[in-house]
Amino acid sequence: MSSQAAHNTLLIPGPIEFDDAVLQSMSHYAESHVGPAFVKTFGETLTLLRKLFQTTDPAAQPFVISGSGTLGWDIVAANLIERGEDALVLHTGYFGDSFAAALESYGAKATQLKAPIGDRPQLSEIEAALKEKPYKIITITHVDTSTGVLSDIKAVAELVRRVSPDTLVVVDGVCSVGCEEIDFDAWGLDVVLTASQKAIGCPPGLSILMLSGRAINVFKTRKTPPASYYASIANWLPIMQKYEAGSPSYFATPPTQLVHALHTSLSSITAKPVSERFAIHTQASDKVKAAVAELGLTQLATKPENQAHAMTAIRLPEGLIAPDILPGLLKRGVVFAGGLHKEIAPLYIRFGHMGVSVTDPNRKDIDGAIVALKEAYAEARKAKGL
Amino acid sequence: MSSQAAHNTLLIPGPIEFDDAVLQSMSHYAESHVGPAFVKTFGETLTLLRKLFQTTDPAAQPFVISGSGTLGWDIVAANLIERGEDALVLHTGYFGDSFAAALESYGAKATQLKAPIGDRPQLSEIEAALKEKPYKIITITHVDTSTGVLSDIKAVAELVRRVSPDTLVVVDGVCSVGCEEIDFDAWGLDVVLTASQKAIGCPPGLSILMLSGRAINVFKTRKTPPASYYASIANWLPIMQKYEAGSPSYFATPPTQLVHALHTSLSSITAKPVSERFAIHTQASDKVKAAVAELGLTQLATKPENQAHAMTAIRLPEGLIAPDILPGLLKRGVVFAGGLHKEIAPLYIRFGHMGVSVTDPNRKDIDGAIVALKEAYAEARKAKGL
Repeated sequence: MSSQAAHNTLLIPGPIEFDDAVLQSMSHYAESHVGPAFVKTFGETLTLLRKLFQTTDPAAQPFVISGSGTLGWDIVAANLIERGEDALVLHTGYFGDSFAAALESYGAKATQLKAPIGDRPQLSEIEAALKEKPYKIITITHVDTSTGVLSDIKAVAELVRRVSPDTLVVVDGVCSVGCEEIDFDAWGLDVVLTASQKAIGCPPGLSILMLSGRAINVFKTRKTPPASYYASIANWLPIMQKYEAGSPSYFATPPTQLVHALHTSLSSITAKPVSERFAIHTQASDKVKAAVAELGLTQLATKPENQAHAMTAIRLPEGLIAPDILPGLLKRGVVFAGGLHKEIAPLYIRFGHMGVSVTDPNRKDIDGAIVALKEAYAEARKAKGL
Repeated sequence: MSSQAAHNTLLIPGPIEFDDAVLQSMSHYAESHVGPAFVKTFGETLTLLRKLFQTTDPAAQPFVISGSGTLGWDIVAANLIERGEDALVLHTGYFGDSFAAALESYGAKATQLKAPIGDRPQLSEIEAALKEKPYKIITITHVDTSTGVLSDIKAVAELVRRVSPDTLVVVDGVCSVGCEEIDFDAWGLDVVLTASQKAIGCPPGLSILMLSGRAINVFKTRKTPPASYYASIANWLPIMQKYEAGSPSYFATPPTQLVHALHTSLSSITAKPVSERFAIHTQASDKVKAAVAELGLTQLATKPENQAHAMTAIRLPEGLIAPDILPGLLKRGVVFAGGLHKEIAPLYIRFGHMGVSVTDPNRKDIDGAIVALKEAYAEARKAKGL
């Protein structure tokens, strides 16, 4: 890690530690956004996304847009649903509430199906909800970063196709793309939106989406124009298509350095079968979750099938709150995140284990963090007389 | 320029050549977006923007958001004007049409006051238009990158305050902030929106705005909620205020590396009086424009007072089009841009002269480009038998 100054190991659920080569791409020299060199880089980046999402359907369409992951919600809300139409939002934490708020900003009616903290809505509940009224879209947070709960998007998509085939299946994959299995075509997904700074391993600043041909068609047959300018698919679709076909086109200046970094990151990720990448994340996750259990600690996500593979939300025992243990971790050079779920924020901490921290065999980030967790936890208990 | 690989000199009207230190900041190691180190960097960056915009009014509010400059139009359209309200758009090229389109996406009624190509609407015309109906906002492209036309925003703002004091003065400063004088408080401006990749000298990917207290108040007294989620001031205002006050807050993950680069760039810019920076850009512009005249070439902006100081739009003589001369420039290591104004795109070329290319005395970018222009122009004429 020679090019990076010594720093604490960042093991929050994003941004994550970055590979040297990715960071070097961030300092790429100035380049015209419509010149042939950048056109090639951007076009290849879009094609590499198809590989990451395991889609070979030519009707599927990748988008890379300057913005945070949040922008992806606006792109869905402004283009794929119209004022007064219904959205079913599966809620597994903070990000369900936020997605619903984004949809409502554009006049959609968002119905949330909420699970208890640490759980996810059951398929039977989702089926019942889908039969109540025709939903234009259903949204699923693949991994809710606030709880570490993993949703079974394959099963939900199957259910939707069976009981409400016109409903678009929209996956918030901000904390899942690059670490959890996603088989875009085979699972019949319509939208997966994500951001650059989590398991894709590129600095923050890119909103990334994959849309199915069905989603593009829903957009094209809207009764009203898109309810945004910057988030309008009408403005971005020709740009993405032209760059991928090798020609420049202008709507807004793309973030050239971030696109270079994404290109570097995706080239590395897709150089091996993505299934291997998912398996490595599962192994690291198993190791972390075993260590957490060994300490007598529990997770917010109690059922194994609900547990994300790239982060662990660790519930603290009574008498301890996040500020009691995070400084002890930091003292040992490890940065975890505090809680985010508003009802229980101080009562848990979050350990992100994704990207180079788990895939680079030269790094000992996870083993080191487990040791730090054991020590900091013991120290915190002792300080509180527990 | 040791850290940058050898490359052609980028002299388009943005992105521009970047300083080594700025590019090094782009590869900053991973950092938590809510950790104290980044909070300090982001907070200082917002404060430095106040200095660049020459505002000391505590009610003025800077914003730095992940996105391209285009996002600034959405922020204006979704927050400062409501469905059915009127906007007066002063048109000096391509970007007037685009700003009008952005406003109309949100249901505003945009009336464009168009000048002939290369000119700008006259104050008397603007005054007459303002007296016709109550406009919620007036938008002015400070420098229209498609034509190189400079608008007199100080005079327009004075006029608005006199004849239509409730109208918000909104300046598109994408190609002017950092190179053209802007005295935010003294001139009574309400919004200046810009992007990172032009005269601010930071890679693309940041939407930057300064809003007056009056603009914030117009937002706060809206009758309807903001018509966007990602572009909602309601979501971003508390974030900006908290970071500048030294506390973290979360709405969407900020682009940490780009913010570091902006911090580096703004620290360098504001280390000297900004008036010196504007003067250096004027000197470089005078040199370029004299060289253009010496070649017998004219500018799209024919009147000296209409001419931008950070770019020159050079009209080609009959018989020559942009593809006849751009390759000759490239052969000499210089990248200019082609035309962008749809009515005359092939008939002119654009030479950007801003940022380190004019402020760094060790660089000979402008002198080199003038020599290249002379040679490539002679070569192109010869090839066409002119």
